[in-house]
Amino acid sequence: MRIDGLQYANWSEKIFRQLREGGVDAVHVTIAYHESFRETVLNFERWNRWFEQYPDLIMKGLWAQDIDRARESGRTAIFFGFQNPSPMEDDIGLVEILHTLGARFMQLTYNNQSLLATGCYEAEDSGLTRMGREVIDEMNRVGLVVDMSHSGDRSTIEAAEYSQRPIAITHANPYAWQPALRNKRHEVIQAVVDKGGMLGFSLYPHHLKDKSACTLQSFCDMVARAADTYGAQHLGIGSDLCQDQPDSVVEWMRVGRWTKRIDYGEGSASAPGFPDMPAWFQDNRHFGTLEQGLRATGLSDEDVGGIMGKNWYRFFAENFGPQG
Amino acid sequence: MRIDGLQYANWSEKIFRQLREGGVDAVHVTIAYHESFRETVLNFERWNRWFEQYPDLIMKGLWAQDIDRARESGRTAIFFGFQNPSPMEDDIGLVEILHTLGARFMQLTYNNQSLLATGCYEAEDSGLTRMGREVIDEMNRVGLVVDMSHSGDRSTIEAAEYSQRPIAITHANPYAWQPALRNKRHEVIQAVVDKGGMLGFSLYPHHLKDKSACTLQSFCDMVARAADTYGAQHLGIGSDLCQDQPDSVVEWMRVGRWTKRIDYGEGSASAPGFPDMPAWFQDNRHFGTLEQGLRATGLSDEDVGGIMGKNWYRFFAENFGPQG
Repeated sequence: MRIDGLQYANWSEKIFRQLREGGVDAVHVTIAYHESFRETVLNFERWNRWFEQYPDLIMKGLWAQDIDRARESGRTAIFFGFQNPSPMEDDIGLVEILHTLGARFMQLTYNNQSLLATGCYEAEDSGLTRMGREVIDEMNRVGLVVDMSHSGDRSTIEAAEYSQRPIAITHANPYAWQPALRNKRHEVIQAVVDKGGMLGFSLYPHHLKDKSACTLQSFCDMVARAADTYGAQHLGIGSDLCQDQPDSVVEWMRVGRWTKRIDYGEGSASAPGFPDMPAWFQDNRHFGTLEQGLRATGLSDEDVGGIMGKNWYRFFAENFGPQG
Repeated sequence: MRIDGLQYANWSEKIFRQLREGGVDAVHVTIAYHESFRETVLNFERWNRWFEQYPDLIMKGLWAQDIDRARESGRTAIFFGFQNPSPMEDDIGLVEILHTLGARFMQLTYNNQSLLATGCYEAEDSGLTRMGREVIDEMNRVGLVVDMSHSGDRSTIEAAEYSQRPIAITHANPYAWQPALRNKRHEVIQAVVDKGGMLGFSLYPHHLKDKSACTLQSFCDMVARAADTYGAQHLGIGSDLCQDQPDSVVEWMRVGRWTKRIDYGEGSASAPGFPDMPAWFQDNRHFGTLEQGLRATGLSDEDVGGIMGKNWYRFFAENFGPQG
């Protein structure tokens, strides 16, 4: 079983076919960065059309069992999430509405301060807000997973501890391996896994040691060390693959409508666009290469199987429905 | 089994308890008259709060089987619908979004011309529009029932004939019994039932012979005659009960935002408010009285059981899911 914990591709029939070639049974797809509720609905609509157009390749994923249905019929189940709480605007009632429409992950922040918590690019992280705690309760109730991939350390630790259900960092790597602002310090990852949460390893070059030149072995050794430290059952893949996106999209991701200036985020004025993916993970057809690399580290078959998909499957099964 | 094909009450714990006292297993509730999509979402949210607040009395209804669950647990299943296509605005993609949120009936018009068809108050009924046919196809595909209660004769007949799935007139009576603009001529009802559709009998006084003074016997005799003419299996109740609503609400129903003047609809300047319900059907506790009245006409137990709920149950079971 192969499940990817995050992608934001410029979706097309080509990519849907590559998901099948790569044996990807399910993928968590970002459908909102800075979109309002109303704009997010249009993104759901676009996916509804794709489900109608490509019924042999993809299907809407709402529950873990949908992954079984996808596997039985040779399709990829698409699960939805937001990288920012902007789709819920300032209305806690939209949490359930968005879950009903199919949202299964929501980041409490995207780099900046939000109504709920602090993003990892702010100078000061003041932790969960009053509304942040209320919204986590509501997300717990309906089964919308708290994702803290782009949040600050304090906010992430507070969210892990406050939430009554496990949370996720869907796409990031250990800071100790690559000290990027978006990667996570030991105590942050520990707080998440201590509560049953998940870390999805990112293949986005800014999160990799040596960036685009990162070797498969370096990446897989890092995963194996994390398995030793945190337990393999808490680990998965969250490739952050942004395939076929024009550079205007990375600008939208970084800038949204919160500034009129250019913010380069993890890039720079000299390299403002999407970075090149590593040679050994160009697109969804490379999941097999990644799996071979993990096996080569000496990780057990069970651990590799968990990291490649079964851990996300278990996490989906336990966290997408109403609170028990 | 008792199912009401339409209500628009000022909902409260009191009314939810009266639904239980009246043995109402399911009710189709209007949650939008002239609301935009965004406003309709707020109405869904309000119901989500009620489902949280009164879990022992009500539950959300999505499929006919939910009525079985409601009966087993002594609750009323609430099914949602719109009296106007305003929630889908000018975007056919919103049909599926609204169905996902729980909408199961949508009127193509409310009295006036819409983007889809002509309402029963227009001088000219030009029938289904280009968009109207597209939207019926989409409603058929996802399982959102076409309701023509407030539509013109030609539009209703065309909708019944064009639609690949049965349509409904959820709340109206035969024009031959009470010649109200909102009641339906023989050929209109015949067109609907010929395609397997349903007529829900209204208890709204403007649709009754002698209005608020209508007798139970007159109403039930009319139902029995309709059963002879159209077949009892196509008939149900759609009480149009607007319990506890202030008169400002009937003005909203009639005027929305389409005019700055007052339009009295079925009322008049001297009687602009909600009319008094007949003495024998004041609220949901009177469904038993109605059932007794139907039995007194000599209708068979099977026919009475069908009209009181089993026909709507069958219709829900066949028409709320994706097209087979």
